[in-house]
Amino acid sequence: MSHTDMEIFEKYESVVRSYCRSFPTVFTKSKGHKMWDEQGREYIDFFSGAGALNYGHNDEKMKKKLIKYIEEDGITHSLDKATTTKAEFIQKFNDVILKPRDLNYKMMFPGPTGTNSVESALKLARKVTGRTDIISFTNGFHGMTIGSLSVTGNAAKRKGAGVPLQNAVTMPYDNYVLDNYDSLDYLERFLEDGGSGVDIPAAMIVETVQGEGGINAARLEWLKRIDDICKRWDILLIVDDIQAGVGRTGTFFSFEPAGIKPDIVCMSKSLSGYGIPFAITLFRPELDVWNPGEHNGTFRGNNHAFVTATAALDYWKDDQFEKDIQRKGNMVHEFLTNLNQKYPELKGEVRGRGLMAGIACGVDDLASKVAEKAFDQGLIMETSGPKDEVFKLFPAINIDDEALKKGFDIIEESVRKLVKEPILN
Amino acid sequence: MSHTDMEIFEKYESVVRSYCRSFPTVFTKSKGHKMWDEQGREYIDFFSGAGALNYGHNDEKMKKKLIKYIEEDGITHSLDKATTTKAEFIQKFNDVILKPRDLNYKMMFPGPTGTNSVESALKLARKVTGRTDIISFTNGFHGMTIGSLSVTGNAAKRKGAGVPLQNAVTMPYDNYVLDNYDSLDYLERFLEDGGSGVDIPAAMIVETVQGEGGINAARLEWLKRIDDICKRWDILLIVDDIQAGVGRTGTFFSFEPAGIKPDIVCMSKSLSGYGIPFAITLFRPELDVWNPGEHNGTFRGNNHAFVTATAALDYWKDDQFEKDIQRKGNMVHEFLTNLNQKYPELKGEVRGRGLMAGIACGVDDLASKVAEKAFDQGLIMETSGPKDEVFKLFPAINIDDEALKKGFDIIEESVRKLVKEPILN
Amino acid sequence: MSHTDMEIFEKYESVVRSYCRSFPTVFTKSKGHKMWDEQGREYIDFFSGAGALNYGHNDEKMKKKLIKYIEEDGITHSLDKATTTKAEFIQKFNDVILKPRDLNYKMMFPGPTGTNSVESALKLARKVTGRTDIISFTNGFHGMTIGSLSVTGNAAKRKGAGVPLQNAVTMPYDNYVLDNYDSLDYLERFLEDGGSGVDIPAAMIVETVQGEGGINAARLEWLKRIDDICKRWDILLIVDDIQAGVGRTGTFFSFEPAGIKPDIVCMSKSLSGYGIPFAITLFRPELDVWNPGEHNGTFRGNNHAFVTATAALDYWKDDQFEKDIQRKGNMVHEFLTNLNQKYPELKGEVRGRGLMAGIACGVDDLASKVAEKAFDQGLIMETSGPKDEVFKLFPAINIDDEALKKGFDIIEESVRKLVKEPILN
Amino acid sequence: MSHTDMEIFEKYESVVRSYCRSFPTVFTKSKGHKMWDEQGREYIDFFSGAGALNYGHNDEKMKKKLIKYIEEDGITHSLDKATTTKAEFIQKFNDVILKPRDLNYKMMFPGPTGTNSVESALKLARKVTGRTDIISFTNGFHGMTIGSLSVTGNAAKRKGAGVPLQNAVTMPYDNYVLDNYDSLDYLERFLEDGGSGVDIPAAMIVETVQGEGGINAARLEWLKRIDDICKRWDILLIVDDIQAGVGRTGTFFSFEPAGIKPDIVCMSKSLSGYGIPFAITLFRPELDVWNPGEHNGTFRGNNHAFVTATAALDYWKDDQFEKDIQRKGNMVHEFLTNLNQKYPELKGEVRGRGLMAGIACGVDDLASKVAEKAFDQGLIMETSGPKDEVFKLFPAINIDDEALKKGFDIIEESVRKLVKEPILN
Repeated sequence: MSHTDMEIFEKYESVVRSYCRSFPTVFTKSKGHKMWDEQGREYIDFFSGAGALNYGHNDEKMKKKLIKYIEEDGITHSLDKATTTKAEFIQKFNDVILKPRDLNYKMMFPGPTGTNSVESALKLARKVTGRTDIISFTNGFHGMTIGSLSVTGNAAKRKGAGVPLQNAVTMPYDNYVLDNYDSLDYLERFLEDGGSGVDIPAAMIVETVQGEGGINAARLEWLKRIDDICKRWDILLIVDDIQAGVGRTGTFFSFEPAGIKPDIVCMSKSLSGYGIPFAITLFRPELDVWNPGEHNGTFRGNNHAFVTATAALDYWKDDQFEKDIQRKGNMVHEFLTNLNQKYPELKGEVRGRGLMAGIACGVDDLASKVAEKAFDQGLIMETSGPKDEVFKLFPAINIDDEALKKGFDIIEESVRKLVKEPILN
Repeated sequence: MSHTDMEIFEKYESVVRSYCRSFPTVFTKSKGHKMWDEQGREYIDFFSGAGALNYGHNDEKMKKKLIKYIEEDGITHSLDKATTTKAEFIQKFNDVILKPRDLNYKMMFPGPTGTNSVESALKLARKVTGRTDIISFTNGFHGMTIGSLSVTGNAAKRKGAGVPLQNAVTMPYDNYVLDNYDSLDYLERFLEDGGSGVDIPAAMIVETVQGEGGINAARLEWLKRIDDICKRWDILLIVDDIQAGVGRTGTFFSFEPAGIKPDIVCMSKSLSGYGIPFAITLFRPELDVWNPGEHNGTFRGNNHAFVTATAALDYWKDDQFEKDIQRKGNMVHEFLTNLNQKYPELKGEVRGRGLMAGIACGVDDLASKVAEKAFDQGLIMETSGPKDEVFKLFPAINIDDEALKKGFDIIEESVRKLVKEPILN
Repeated sequence: MSHTDMEIFEKYESVVRSYCRSFPTVFTKSKGHKMWDEQGREYIDFFSGAGALNYGHNDEKMKKKLIKYIEEDGITHSLDKATTTKAEFIQKFNDVILKPRDLNYKMMFPGPTGTNSVESALKLARKVTGRTDIISFTNGFHGMTIGSLSVTGNAAKRKGAGVPLQNAVTMPYDNYVLDNYDSLDYLERFLEDGGSGVDIPAAMIVETVQGEGGINAARLEWLKRIDDICKRWDILLIVDDIQAGVGRTGTFFSFEPAGIKPDIVCMSKSLSGYGIPFAITLFRPELDVWNPGEHNGTFRGNNHAFVTATAALDYWKDDQFEKDIQRKGNMVHEFLTNLNQKYPELKGEVRGRGLMAGIACGVDDLASKVAEKAFDQGLIMETSGPKDEVFKLFPAINIDDEALKKGFDIIEESVRKLVKEPILN
Repeated sequence: MSHTDMEIFEKYESVVRSYCRSFPTVFTKSKGHKMWDEQGREYIDFFSGAGALNYGHNDEKMKKKLIKYIEEDGITHSLDKATTTKAEFIQKFNDVILKPRDLNYKMMFPGPTGTNSVESALKLARKVTGRTDIISFTNGFHGMTIGSLSVTGNAAKRKGAGVPLQNAVTMPYDNYVLDNYDSLDYLERFLEDGGSGVDIPAAMIVETVQGEGGINAARLEWLKRIDDICKRWDILLIVDDIQAGVGRTGTFFSFEPAGIKPDIVCMSKSLSGYGIPFAITLFRPELDVWNPGEHNGTFRGNNHAFVTATAALDYWKDDQFEKDIQRKGNMVHEFLTNLNQKYPELKGEVRGRGLMAGIACGVDDLASKVAEKAFDQGLIMETSGPKDEVFKLFPAINIDDEALKKGFDIIEESVRKLVKEPILN
């Protein structure tokens, strides 16, 4: 194979591109937790497509089903016409995921991306309640189209809108201001006081663990209380489980251990299992007040995704998979805790839940340097948080222990090298 | 194969679903211009995934390349990391499409759907100009997320937003009010008068032929004048070529025969060639003022789409394909003109350009009945327009003449049957 | 009297001040149609406080009543407590104005300025209909607070908002684009088409003659048709009669000759008769759905204004006053028509109705120069229109013929001088 | 005098009227701290026109000057033309108020009401900074036009807008959530965190003591810290001194004891001294970036107000007046503290600063009942707070001690009667 001229991207692709700056090579092949570039260099992937590749790359079982489907000229694109494949996905998702969790949701195909799902959720909440405002939380990330961006915290991304963002009120996430102060006292004060200037919203939208916002994991009792407040004020609760869902935190839905049943759930990223664009919006049947076609999208019937997503559900047929993710989550947590103690120079704080974890570094630019050093040694890892202050471990949830430990070693080695450098001294 | 129980959709899928109501069967396989349902019934497809399947279903050449790519564990999902496949697409798109047309555009991957592309275009226009308003046109359709919906005309879809839609001004499309009155005199009067209440916008966004809005084809001189006005007032011109592009009207870009070079172009739908989610935004290099990551999206690097989209470009290596589309466009136009003359009961008006054509019926619900009757006879065809008053012919642009004529026969037969019914008498 | 040092204004008053730039002297006394400055120079006032002094300055009858009221320690400020004076005004306004015109309106005191009245009207229309948008017209002027500014056309004033102005759609006023084209065909097309992008509004707000917008007088049949359209679509019609009302066009309400009864009427400016801040909002009793205090304002009970406004109503006890205004309106129109014919160099167009009249000059800056020259000769006259292209005759409506003619002479002399200057040659 | 038929208001005035419901009689005369109704009943006024009558009714010195001015046909209405009277006011305001306090402000006449001033302040802050958002505070009240309403907390008044209110973020006022928690930690956390979802605003707008919001007095150190935060983030600080200013809290400007110099100050209500509509906006000279006429208003040149406002400034020629207000403020505070201790049934909390004081009652509707009972005994007093839970003492600031004590007696008697009633038992 002749190597790709990197100038192609420089010359023809917009400067808006970003990850290719952190991982400056041309990738060409991938399998499981590994990626290879054109020079044949191998990488361990602790990035997992920002949460879109929870099952690793090109899972063999899904791959076989997808190839077979394509070979047989199965429908590729169907909008919301009925197809065999779509029915199979719907049925299996109910059988394997919803029913065993005692969840009763209608399913909507809002278009194949996370922001499509969020936009549909906001529309539905506004239609059901007749109210306009949405309460979102500090450092929440929900997407880049104007509706989703309005409930997203990041200042740089918000500024990109070019128009004032409206109809949203931002409230403090768990532990936002002070550790010993419950941010929900604050929120509830605003709701109960008729002079607060905060109108009763249609919905609250929350991530149980904030991925882009800095791997902030809300305490389960905080989530439970959010749910209580929503019920008390007749506000709909939307859980955006796009990044934290599909097993990332140890259960299929990230909200399960909190014992809550959100009114609306947004799913995308790893839902197709194979990295193929796919999203659904789930909601209580009583909320299904849409008119036909009131929300739609050209790629809402992506049958390749139906095929792989259906195959991916096999992982969830019993609780073995969950247990294994949780076990590996503990490994990660233990590793990070030790690392943090061993290297006080990080001024670090271990964050996250399950396989959604990281260390927030108290030194400017340090997290980015850790990720950079790790990349040099063959590990792909991204940063997050408003100042990119967190290095973020997102291994495939079906990764084997050996690879996981190899990743740990690279990270530790990166940290070890950095603490000797002038930056920390 | 056991047949799918249609109750699955009734029971578990949201009532928001729509096309499955017009085409009430379960589809399972498709090839070229044909689809089959679970009963083995064959259909001619004059719908083409609402313009997402211009090359027909499961094109053999693209299919082979896609299967090979999957078999070899090519990267599936890459965000905006550099991949071999992405570079190939970018290079070939420049070589085959842009350069021969003397177009110089930067390319951005805004997420894989049309509305992602439109939202990125609006953001960019606002950032470049520092202005907030966008001028859109009556019966324009640009997508269902809040930014795109703000520039979309359809009242039912707008209402679904649940919030007032802002920062957009709607102006009359070509021939909107009176045939003998140029709607652009009106538009320009608003721009030149400092008391008009219409602020100078960041951009105008226009479809050269409105697909959802009723197959309204703007005259080429009208498009030319829009371009002139934009230049005069330093307003950016965005052509939304999501439905009319990729050959649908006879040239790759629908604006080519008008002799204009828009500042920004939105592409999606048939761009991947295979019905796989994919979108790009093109713009003049001088407009590339994005910060890295200022707009992004999880599925902006859908490599399956890069593979098929690159393969699809082979159709455009010389001008034979264009000539053939144009020839078939003429066949369609001739057929519709004759049909309309033969059946004055339609109170019809032939509309469209190239293979984006239809008849607007002057009798309530008639277009829907034509489509319904056609479906009974094995033809899939949708309606459009604010009152679904247009039946819309969207055959694959590589359809063979025989199939095309067979479709014509079914349509004529449908009309023939209907004009005898009480509805028209 | 020692003369005022003009530096006081330069030094301490904001640069936002404007009229003191056109009329650069310090005024100190006024009576009827006359004003005097500190140098004792006398001016004829064809400006009338931008329509707030229709009865001239310091009308003797009103003055006596006001002084007596103050001497007796009548209530000055009462919010919306009941006062004797307020009751007298309400009763007399009903007896003298509303009943004889067969109008049945509830009255609201929204605060003492025009923009308070407009803001209350927009709120009420939105509350009654549950809709958000307001249709306003090109070159309409309704006030400077954000709600009123949203329905105001002037680009410079709109820009001053510093935020995008929302929830309003601007439509062409009578004769806006082409003389032979009815702008209401255009408006109605937008309403009847479900794909137009213009949502059915809560209300339309219109001035029968646009004062700030350039003395554009809508034809009575145009106003009648607006009224018809509003009724057909269940849209509320708001007439902003703040500048054109209180006799300025020849009848108390400017809409009387059109034979319409608006749903809501905004009144201010000359309503107090004495130049004292005062405003009311009138509406059909069925629309009185306010909650107590839902709209309010500290100065809504300005009893000095109640006193003078009640006294001013004596002018309207029979139809003599109206006839006299109309006679003088004809004099003005005749004068302007002759002037315009005599001086084709003006490239002028006579505009207006009643004593709200002017000439739009086709030469840049000419209208301002006419006003400037007139000021030098002792006539106060302002300009209007988006480019200040109109010189605007706004004499007191009770001015005597002699003064009126003297004003004419000064204007003609100003024009005569200017046409000899290089500007027009 | 024949008595006014109360039916006039029922029949002709909108149901939006409010104070006439609390004080159901027809007032006809007033002087100093006294009002009389048509039955000749005398009332002590502890309401003072909601803060518009700080000097009592019809102050004798101002009255004489006003009558003389009217008798001599002084200009009444001048827009922003220069007048002798206006110059006198500007000069004296600088000499008596600004210079001795070492304040250097430009003055703008934004229209004669508080909301005009607030709207002008918001526009200016947005223009100067190029930003759109304004931070306001819980239970803030700034006016009823859309711009001012957007920064007002009261839910009922906000709902009256009929459109979503935009471009404002509400933050907790001093002591809003918890007594021992500084609400500014919270605010600053939002500003410093680039992921908070709160964009850096153009300005913060704050009342030092919230009148409508429930007589909440911010601690001086809290105000000082607000000022520090604004400076640190280059945010403009707007003090809305419309109700708390002109001596109400003991100094001319309410912010003086905090030792801060706001960037912009809004003044109205008692500024004219006589209850006549009048408002000004003050700002640092560097902020004077207006274009001529960019904000205006018909009644911005209310010369009657210039006359009385100038006369009122005589109260401030030395510090005697301030000391006397402060002494009376202490009397009020002592009275309320004793009352509250004596009647624990009130579950009361004493609030306020200077002569802006009240008791927040912990029993529903109790404050309204106290005010009602007081009215029966000849005292006019209003309630405030989101649930009208505060009875509010607003005597004239030049009231004599005897009248003040007489008012105290009536209040105590009202409370004494109520605590025996079933409501509190």
